[in-house]
Amino acid sequence: MASLVANGCLNAGLGLLFIALVANHAAAWSLGRLSTRLLSHPHRLRPASLATADTYDIRYFTQLVDHFAYHPHPSTFQQRYLISTEHCSEPNSPIFMYCGNEGKIEWFAQNTGFLWELASTFGALVLFPEHRYYGESMPFGSQEAAYKDADSLAYLTSEQALADFVSLLTDLKKNMSAEACPVVLFGGSYGGMLAAWMRLKYPHIAIGAIASSAPILQFEDLVPTDTFYRIVSEDFKGESSDCFDVIQQSWDVLDTVGQSEEGLQSLTNKFLLCSQLNNTSELENWMYAAYEYLAMVNYPYAANFTMPLPAFPVREVCNAINAGYNNTDILSRIFAGMSVYYNYTGSATCFDLGENIDGIDGWDWQACTEMVMPMSSNGSNSMFPPYTFDLQQYEAYCLEQYGVKPMPTWITQEFGGHSIKKVLENFGSNIVFSNGLLDPWSGGGVLQNISSTLVAVITEQGAHHLDLRSSTEDDPQWLIEQRQVEIAHIKSWLSQYQDQHHGYAASS
Amino acid sequence: MASLVANGCLNAGLGLLFIALVANHAAAWSLGRLSTRLLSHPHRLRPASLATADTYDIRYFTQLVDHFAYHPHPSTFQQRYLISTEHCSEPNSPIFMYCGNEGKIEWFAQNTGFLWELASTFGALVLFPEHRYYGESMPFGSQEAAYKDADSLAYLTSEQALADFVSLLTDLKKNMSAEACPVVLFGGSYGGMLAAWMRLKYPHIAIGAIASSAPILQFEDLVPTDTFYRIVSEDFKGESSDCFDVIQQSWDVLDTVGQSEEGLQSLTNKFLLCSQLNNTSELENWMYAAYEYLAMVNYPYAANFTMPLPAFPVREVCNAINAGYNNTDILSRIFAGMSVYYNYTGSATCFDLGENIDGIDGWDWQACTEMVMPMSSNGSNSMFPPYTFDLQQYEAYCLEQYGVKPMPTWITQEFGGHSIKKVLENFGSNIVFSNGLLDPWSGGGVLQNISSTLVAVITEQGAHHLDLRSSTEDDPQWLIEQRQVEIAHIKSWLSQYQDQHHGYAASS
Repeated sequence: MASLVANGCLNAGLGLLFIALVANHAAAWSLGRLSTRLLSHPHRLRPASLATADTYDIRYFTQLVDHFAYHPHPSTFQQRYLISTEHCSEPNSPIFMYCGNEGKIEWFAQNTGFLWELASTFGALVLFPEHRYYGESMPFGSQEAAYKDADSLAYLTSEQALADFVSLLTDLKKNMSAEACPVVLFGGSYGGMLAAWMRLKYPHIAIGAIASSAPILQFEDLVPTDTFYRIVSEDFKGESSDCFDVIQQSWDVLDTVGQSEEGLQSLTNKFLLCSQLNNTSELENWMYAAYEYLAMVNYPYAANFTMPLPAFPVREVCNAINAGYNNTDILSRIFAGMSVYYNYTGSATCFDLGENIDGIDGWDWQACTEMVMPMSSNGSNSMFPPYTFDLQQYEAYCLEQYGVKPMPTWITQEFGGHSIKKVLENFGSNIVFSNGLLDPWSGGGVLQNISSTLVAVITEQGAHHLDLRSSTEDDPQWLIEQRQVEIAHIKSWLSQYQDQHHGYAASS
Repeated sequence: MASLVANGCLNAGLGLLFIALVANHAAAWSLGRLSTRLLSHPHRLRPASLATADTYDIRYFTQLVDHFAYHPHPSTFQQRYLISTEHCSEPNSPIFMYCGNEGKIEWFAQNTGFLWELASTFGALVLFPEHRYYGESMPFGSQEAAYKDADSLAYLTSEQALADFVSLLTDLKKNMSAEACPVVLFGGSYGGMLAAWMRLKYPHIAIGAIASSAPILQFEDLVPTDTFYRIVSEDFKGESSDCFDVIQQSWDVLDTVGQSEEGLQSLTNKFLLCSQLNNTSELENWMYAAYEYLAMVNYPYAANFTMPLPAFPVREVCNAINAGYNNTDILSRIFAGMSVYYNYTGSATCFDLGENIDGIDGWDWQACTEMVMPMSSNGSNSMFPPYTFDLQQYEAYCLEQYGVKPMPTWITQEFGGHSIKKVLENFGSNIVFSNGLLDPWSGGGVLQNISSTLVAVITEQGAHHLDLRSSTEDDPQWLIEQRQVEIAHIKSWLSQYQDQHHGYAASS
């Protein structure tokens, strides 16, 4: 896993990958890398409702590695899941399940306080199954074996992951004599995509889904390819057009300085790098990651992930950049911005740009198979260097890296996306697509109501699945109201279920 | 393929397997066979609307053998499909696609006259893709290679077949610039199950489905396991309780006579068998097949499949059995009934009970993996010997035969079925589940409306997907009306689509 987030000299490689961005910009390509990395991080705040090791059990369930073929001696693996019956009082209590995404499941349990708070309110059983090939849920016996090569990675797909969730739930409900318990799904980012798709594909398994910041339309030509970087850029431009301009101009300066060994040395010094810079691409990736991540976690209150950030951190970064308006050295102003992001506490003495730690990374594999999210940067509305999505280059990278050819049209074949409103306005029900418009992933989200029960919940000032986080004293009113809307939907799904089954007594 | 239908001395092994019944009755088990075979047969009637080699093109499409895993060098195969643009006049004409099931695709094209007639009326493009592992659509290069062993058969699943249909349609529409053409699905029996499931899983691919005689509830404990044989028995009892009694009594007589070599010789003579009978099981299977098949094709007009049958053939068989009421030899009366079924023209001089021809049979494999349809026979309401479904025995057979363990709960996990009305009354739309109540498969069908757009169309006197056949001059009024109801639904789906898209001009 290439870690591009540095915390002082400590590589923050344990960060939480919510969605690894396939940025494929020129710098990344020149390095032969497909993607910059977006690392979001375990939530260090622990409000009362937040899960701790005391509040859930860790269990394992035997899953088929391949749900869609019948081999004589099928391989199985142990899928890890977290389960809490602490709040579950009635025999027919609801089950709140988070669709684990690309990371250790504890991270999601720790970063989805909303679900835990609701579990208490609704008297729900809580379930956090881990996504296959992440955390401890490794096919073929170990991470090393699972990530050995393309043949061992072959079963790392969203369809197999959904089938895991379905098999686990079916077995668990049977063993707990809980067949009548309604299941409500939650998920953020890729987990939100899984939640939405699971409700659409398996309505008999789950009665509804809260799909937060789920970019299910970030495929093929469903949204313009420059959407993501346009929104990142707008976040900065919205704070300050000067800030936007400085960043936009900085790339050329960086490239020019980085042409010589002397220049690379000066960049090493200027950016307080712990080790000598070999090329500008590494530094560019480090900056890309900061800007992308800042836009995603542009939360309205101070938050503490692997590093603490102030409220509205994009504003703070721009303030730092703008504070140097007298400084003609653009890169010094950029460094001031980077320091807000990478060193808000001021404790870092140098920065490590990160390096590959684990070899093959799971999301990279997924991006090289079915999760092809075309990205580009349009010079006129982007603070990033212009580049266009080049499928041939993308394919070449994936073939070289993993020996597989990406299937850029598969997701829309399997899960739809084209004309989504027309297709689903008379089909499907009970999904909340929530998005904060500051989040660059919101551009690939569902931003309009599809029907009365397939609804878009939008917050202008929200960022990446902010709604799923624990409530705090600093929550703005619009965030409180957003969560109330989501709770109202969950209540209506449960009421509908109760009306149908008569057996379930809502404890809320 | 064990052919249990004989036509004179010609083995009718080319018959069309609509659904191979997993009968697992005592006789079949004693032979070490899982199932009796239900062979329905190519329609020899050729009304004007019926497809001939002149009216469609035969084409091939490159499919992935495995849609749900990403191997470095994925295997592909050529899926055959029939296509006709003869009636297709508008650029945005609808596409009527039949979901090919377990047999050569031409058979389904020839036996689905309703679709061809509608194509003419609606100006639709017609598509009949062949189901993988049947006909010419063989993975791994040949039927021999595809059916070599469990590893080569591993990808013979309904999910992979649906993904084939989706990939074919997506590619075809793209290549024909026909992305805006609405797709309506048709299917009978297993093909009807595929049509219903495809609409549910891929609403973005097809706007609606006519699922005829689709026993999507014939799984797990969704319907009583004795349903199928109860309905077969009721068909006979409905014609004559004497007939029912004679058949019910005949099994013991047959077993008693068959105890000795002399008795087997007498049975060989009595039943005009072409070769010496070795055990009564072969004869019992031959009879089972006749009764089951008679119930399925208990059509209201004379029909000519691989052998001609009169209208309401169950009545004719009972008439023949009852005509011998003075005859104390029950087996002679049974033979009279068998002769109606196997020798209505009187041209046969002896009967061949059939033998294995092809080795492994595709449907047998499917029954041994995901298509586990538990069957039993309840002595009090069945004319067949009593037996109960024994999953352990079933598993043992499949392990011995193919080395795979059946997954009896998989289909309901993947496609649902439990509480189907509650699950789907607020989810999904645009499926007609049509069933004729004389058809023993109707017991596993959807027989009640789920919602205003997920509807059950029932005919009391209908049999196995009668509605999909070509119209004839002998069609009773209720059959005409049934088809009109189905046409009205298709029109409403197309109108809905037209209203949404404005671009499609209905030619009907």
